[in-house]
Amino acid sequence: MTERAASSALLTDRYELTMLDAALLAGTHDRECVFEAFTRRLPAGRRYGVLAGTGRLLELIEQFRFQDAELQFLRDNRVVRDETIDWLADYRFSGTIRGYREGELFFPGSPFFIVDAPFAEGVILETLLLSVFNYDSAVASAAARMVAAAGGRPLAEMGSRRANERSAVAAARAAFIAGFSATSNLEAGRTWGVPTMGTAAHAFTLLHDSEEDAFRAQVNALGPGTTLLVDTFDVEKAIETAVKVAGPELGAVRLDSGDLPKLVKQVREQLDSLGAAKTRITVTNDLDEFTIAALAASPVDSYGVGTSVVTGSGHPASGMVYKLVAHRSGDGGEWISVAKKSDGKASIGGRKHPIRRLDARGTAVAEVVHIVEKGDTPDDSGRDLLVPLITDGEVHREHLGVEGTRRARDHRALAMAELPDEAFRLGRGDPVLPTIFG
Amino acid sequence: MTERAASSALLTDRYELTMLDAALLAGTHDRECVFEAFTRRLPAGRRYGVLAGTGRLLELIEQFRFQDAELQFLRDNRVVRDETIDWLADYRFSGTIRGYREGELFFPGSPFFIVDAPFAEGVILETLLLSVFNYDSAVASAAARMVAAAGGRPLAEMGSRRANERSAVAAARAAFIAGFSATSNLEAGRTWGVPTMGTAAHAFTLLHDSEEDAFRAQVNALGPGTTLLVDTFDVEKAIETAVKVAGPELGAVRLDSGDLPKLVKQVREQLDSLGAAKTRITVTNDLDEFTIAALAASPVDSYGVGTSVVTGSGHPASGMVYKLVAHRSGDGGEWISVAKKSDGKASIGGRKHPIRRLDARGTAVAEVVHIVEKGDTPDDSGRDLLVPLITDGEVHREHLGVEGTRRARDHRALAMAELPDEAFRLGRGDPVLPTIFG
Repeated sequence: MTERAASSALLTDRYELTMLDAALLAGTHDRECVFEAFTRRLPAGRRYGVLAGTGRLLELIEQFRFQDAELQFLRDNRVVRDETIDWLADYRFSGTIRGYREGELFFPGSPFFIVDAPFAEGVILETLLLSVFNYDSAVASAAARMVAAAGGRPLAEMGSRRANERSAVAAARAAFIAGFSATSNLEAGRTWGVPTMGTAAHAFTLLHDSEEDAFRAQVNALGPGTTLLVDTFDVEKAIETAVKVAGPELGAVRLDSGDLPKLVKQVREQLDSLGAAKTRITVTNDLDEFTIAALAASPVDSYGVGTSVVTGSGHPASGMVYKLVAHRSGDGGEWISVAKKSDGKASIGGRKHPIRRLDARGTAVAEVVHIVEKGDTPDDSGRDLLVPLITDGEVHREHLGVEGTRRARDHRALAMAELPDEAFRLGRGDPVLPTIFG
Repeated sequence: MTERAASSALLTDRYELTMLDAALLAGTHDRECVFEAFTRRLPAGRRYGVLAGTGRLLELIEQFRFQDAELQFLRDNRVVRDETIDWLADYRFSGTIRGYREGELFFPGSPFFIVDAPFAEGVILETLLLSVFNYDSAVASAAARMVAAAGGRPLAEMGSRRANERSAVAAARAAFIAGFSATSNLEAGRTWGVPTMGTAAHAFTLLHDSEEDAFRAQVNALGPGTTLLVDTFDVEKAIETAVKVAGPELGAVRLDSGDLPKLVKQVREQLDSLGAAKTRITVTNDLDEFTIAALAASPVDSYGVGTSVVTGSGHPASGMVYKLVAHRSGDGGEWISVAKKSDGKASIGGRKHPIRRLDARGTAVAEVVHIVEKGDTPDDSGRDLLVPLITDGEVHREHLGVEGTRRARDHRALAMAELPDEAFRLGRGDPVLPTIFG
């Protein structure tokens, strides 16, 4: 049993089903439609976003079936009419979805998930897909900035305790896609193949009669290559004890408190003076992209990041939305572009096809969003951002599971390498690529 | 199949299991211990916090079993030694937990969840329990401020799409405990008995050939008492159409954009002039406790809140920690209080018992945390905050499920009623009760 649950069908806002109910009665439920997911804007000051969640979502769409228990709940609570219950009992997504590869970078207005389906089939996926993309991408977008700030030093995600217990698994996966090396979360190891890490907390030291007893117990079980936590009482004494117990082959020491730039320097000097020149230093004290950057000149070997990465470093939800942009007319004839005009929330109607425009050196210069007819591919020499995700109801398996997660991580690295240098400055700025509707 | 999954055992940081591994080898794993969960501080400016998560957590602790699949993962990945695998195969929490009732208010330093168990049994629950409390309480704490700001008008939680798909269910439950009336999330309805609501989105209007067709389709399916969304194109025209289609018995109109104080006033006047004086107005445009408060003088009938409630309104994780505070000595003799001294993160050792002190009128004046011996109850006439949650491994069932959720909601109302008035001002301030170690 992995963390995947049996049915995802009620992870849904009630209004998706009442809309279905009304459309069924009106006979408009099977109008062919195009829905697009995109973000209206990046969080203030952010230069790019990292899309994560696709692999998880495609699995959840496969599990999006209304079984007896779900149907009974809807019947008991009179959420929809009996006719609609019958329709839901047979529901299985039969449409086609194209979108960005997972790990792709996203910019305002550019659709990363394009659903071609009858209204009824497309509309009821809205809540679930936004839940997945909004959270996973918030984590991946923050994590990518931390990876850039760490300048090649490895980062571990350790924020499970600061996120809902299931979010924690998704967060570990999203951070890995964004370039983190490992996670503390065991379920993320099992379900998504993310490497796991971790050795001991302060409680372990406090349990024992002395810090030396605790270190000895840990080294006996985990070997001298383990990481000893050295800030329970007095860091200097702890390091002396640590090297005494584990020898100079001690793997690493972990610092979870204090004035890190100063402390790290002292610890490095002390370790070197004790002959433990290869013992690494890992720091884990409430880090974010800014404190990581501030440690660039310090002899830190790796970082552990908790709260800030699992909560999107100030932006815990990406602003992604899912909009109906076109449908066929009632007689099944021509396509009609649609868009709401709501104050401050107007959108652009019509089927779209996004392309990343690159210059001669392969550096990205713009996000170009073409308005297209069904079946047409824009005449544009840039990198085509759309790949098939689901075709006529069949999920493309390469996006799923451990393999899909690893492919997303690799793709993120490729897409990041296309960005101009200014994308990686932590200072606030506009999206590093303009979105052009072509 | 509800949203509860089969095993929660890998929703855990790896270091919980490596500590267990080392303690087993050292023979220190069965030392009797006391662990306490508390928050070091409230988010800046907040006056109180609302504890949520207990009922969910107790179920997850019951499901915290290492079955073949979990053990195989640990073996394959050499997370712990074979002896430890055997110990985990038999694991079932056998200790005793006392704590706050769910829905209780919390203040810095006061323990709300006190675990009496052998080290091994208590330590491996850490990650899971912090995940649950940190997220659920972040939502409940934000939600309670919104409830106060709404001054008796009902609030619906509609943020599922802005939270991880499973967080969304927990968020709906936490907001309900904090006083929200309903949620859009169907799984929260099924699993936790939270009333669900919702009618239609802009896509439904855009699907149809005219707004009038859309309104008619909705009224045909859901009746004239439904809520019509009136801001897809032009609000004034939409309201005219809405009343024409549904008649003056139209249940409500929903506004999801625009300058709400001004717009709500116009809409009320228009509805009244059309004879729809009983038609309610619900607003849902990116609300938080501050924008809700700003609508106090407007003729709004109810609020729908999304992003801000499910992300804790700027504070998506409560700062809760779980600390070893005492253990018996190696020979099973006396109790030893323990606390780390880490820079900026020092804690207070010893078993604690929190009491809410009330004045003669029943208004809370202080959180008093007594340091006590095992089995002792403090001599204090205040309200005892501790109730049994698990006794010798047996969960007290009244905290679970739909009933537990409703009890938590009721208890939250009682606890809030004890607070002094200044607790409910939205301006920033210190915790409204001081924590006194007695």
